[in-house]
Amino acid sequence: MRHRLKDVAERAGVSVKTVSNVVNGYQHVRPDTRARVERAIAELNYRPNLSARNLRKGRTGVIALAVPELDIPYFAELARHVVTAAAGLGWTVLIDQTGGGREQERKAATGIGDHLIDGLIFSPLALTAEDLAGLDGTPMVLLGERVDHGQADHVVIDNVAAAREITAHLISLGRRRIAAIGAQRTPEGASARLRLAGYAAALDDAGIGYDERLVASAQAWHRADGAAAMRDLLATGVRPDAVFCFNDTLALGALRTLHEAGLRVPADVAVAGFDDIEDGRFSIPTLTTIAPDKERIARLAVELLANRLDGDRQAPRGNSRPPTASPPARAPPPDGARRHEWVR
Amino acid sequence: MRHRLKDVAERAGVSVKTVSNVVNGYQHVRPDTRARVERAIAELNYRPNLSARNLRKGRTGVIALAVPELDIPYFAELARHVVTAAAGLGWTVLIDQTGGGREQERKAATGIGDHLIDGLIFSPLALTAEDLAGLDGTPMVLLGERVDHGQADHVVIDNVAAAREITAHLISLGRRRIAAIGAQRTPEGASARLRLAGYAAALDDAGIGYDERLVASAQAWHRADGAAAMRDLLATGVRPDAVFCFNDTLALGALRTLHEAGLRVPADVAVAGFDDIEDGRFSIPTLTTIAPDKERIARLAVELLANRLDGDRQAPRGNSRPPTASPPARAPPPDGARRHEWVR
Repeated sequence: MRHRLKDVAERAGVSVKTVSNVVNGYQHVRPDTRARVERAIAELNYRPNLSARNLRKGRTGVIALAVPELDIPYFAELARHVVTAAAGLGWTVLIDQTGGGREQERKAATGIGDHLIDGLIFSPLALTAEDLAGLDGTPMVLLGERVDHGQADHVVIDNVAAAREITAHLISLGRRRIAAIGAQRTPEGASARLRLAGYAAALDDAGIGYDERLVASAQAWHRADGAAAMRDLLATGVRPDAVFCFNDTLALGALRTLHEAGLRVPADVAVAGFDDIEDGRFSIPTLTTIAPDKERIARLAVELLANRLDGDRQAPRGNSRPPTASPPARAPPPDGARRHEWVR
Repeated sequence: MRHRLKDVAERAGVSVKTVSNVVNGYQHVRPDTRARVERAIAELNYRPNLSARNLRKGRTGVIALAVPELDIPYFAELARHVVTAAAGLGWTVLIDQTGGGREQERKAATGIGDHLIDGLIFSPLALTAEDLAGLDGTPMVLLGERVDHGQADHVVIDNVAAAREITAHLISLGRRRIAAIGAQRTPEGASARLRLAGYAAALDDAGIGYDERLVASAQAWHRADGAAAMRDLLATGVRPDAVFCFNDTLALGALRTLHEAGLRVPADVAVAGFDDIEDGRFSIPTLTTIAPDKERIARLAVELLANRLDGDRQAPRGNSRPPTASPPARAPPPDGARRHEWVR
């Protein structure tokens, strides 16, 4: 049987109000009374009802993190950091795996409901600004640059600058036929388009022509897609001497294809990824990659959400960071309500 | 602004009750009235309030899946299957990443609360039977053999048989100095102890002596632990000609160490894992592994939970499967309330 507040009160010989005061951490409870209540709580194995404890704050103590898929290790690693950062505030994080489809994402944005959660940290793929426009309910922090929404704070990384930097690194190794894997033309492919722009900018910086035959699309960014794209690139006969994959799982698939083709990495073909997932640190060979600061992204998202919940829409904390390069900084709206945080 | 039922009623020119009937899928609504309500819902971008819609069933339409860590790809892959299986019933799954500690697991078992979720699918590491004994609240299905609990249904795989089989496979390849990586003596290490038992049984079957020097512990089952354990094994001088790792991430770490030591896989040392995660299908070389039917485990867990929610504690569905080997089958309690499902 699950015990209730009144069972504890009965056993401790105090009023329900007094038990409630102890559970809610009020200070004006006599030490011996507090001890009696705490003993009764222990004996009955009583668990404070979350909704009762949060009632005075109008909170559930639970937030949701909505991500496209946990099979992409980047999101699993990010989730761990969000859980850790939120635990510091006593929050429980429940993770909603949307699959990246628009309907499921709309459901995540609206369907979990503010009677269940206090707030939402959301990394959408397919959601449109119109989908978000009608929302006034659950406080929300958006991750990534896929969608813009005047009501929500935003944490973004500078995808163009990062892609430009790693492509420049491959050029600095003397590579000239640098392929790109992961291009997407869909609206969902915002990160893909930004990373492709960075790749193209780096080639341009070095006076290397952009060769469409070296750019491979990938419907999804899984290992199998990277392996298939690398096979396609090798089949065209335009043998690359390096390849920049738009995430690490694509790169791990490409590594596998190169190995099967008898090509040495990096001697014959240098391979670079994006995300710095654990898999890439143990692959053979170790993957060269861009390391976004997942821990800081998570911490900022939780902080922004905490600010929202405290009704503090203005005061910036100390972690803001301006973009170091394109994409063009999106100015906050006139009311100053929204914040962008840039993380490398 | 978030629209409410009465806004839809006003726009459609019908009563709130009629809108509610449409939203709840009642049949006795005239087609033209239904069409008018549906148009109003679309125009206002109205989202039915989950709690209102589920009120008559006393449900939230949300279940939780509690797993130790999503960084272990086995759990991320399992989570995807649970999300898919639950979507078939119209359920939303929220994932609670417990970290595997006892306190966090107690919080997952009791703290999310049945006012938030209809039920819980739980893969615990540290939770004890006593922790679970006091619970009567949220309907729960347990995954794995870590903890036994008279109140909850259970889905388990036959760890001993699986470990015995893969070790026998290594023996059939002519290997005789077969190491094991992943041993744990802690109460949390239930899977570890069962897999070690299967390994030992296979050696015994083949008349190969059990050599303690070939058994390496691993505090956690991450790549780094596998790499370190493999280094330790090589350092002892008892060069194994095969190694059975108790999960795939350990095996991927071991592969890396063998590569660094200049040993060929499988020519010098054969490597086997457990879990059949995607990483192992793209590693170099492809990992030999035990493939638990994650899709079926997920489907069974969701079905058992659905039965519980329907109050159907007795009627078994057609998916039960007896253990093919040890561990000893745990008989259901006299009241027949609980079910064990065995999945390979």
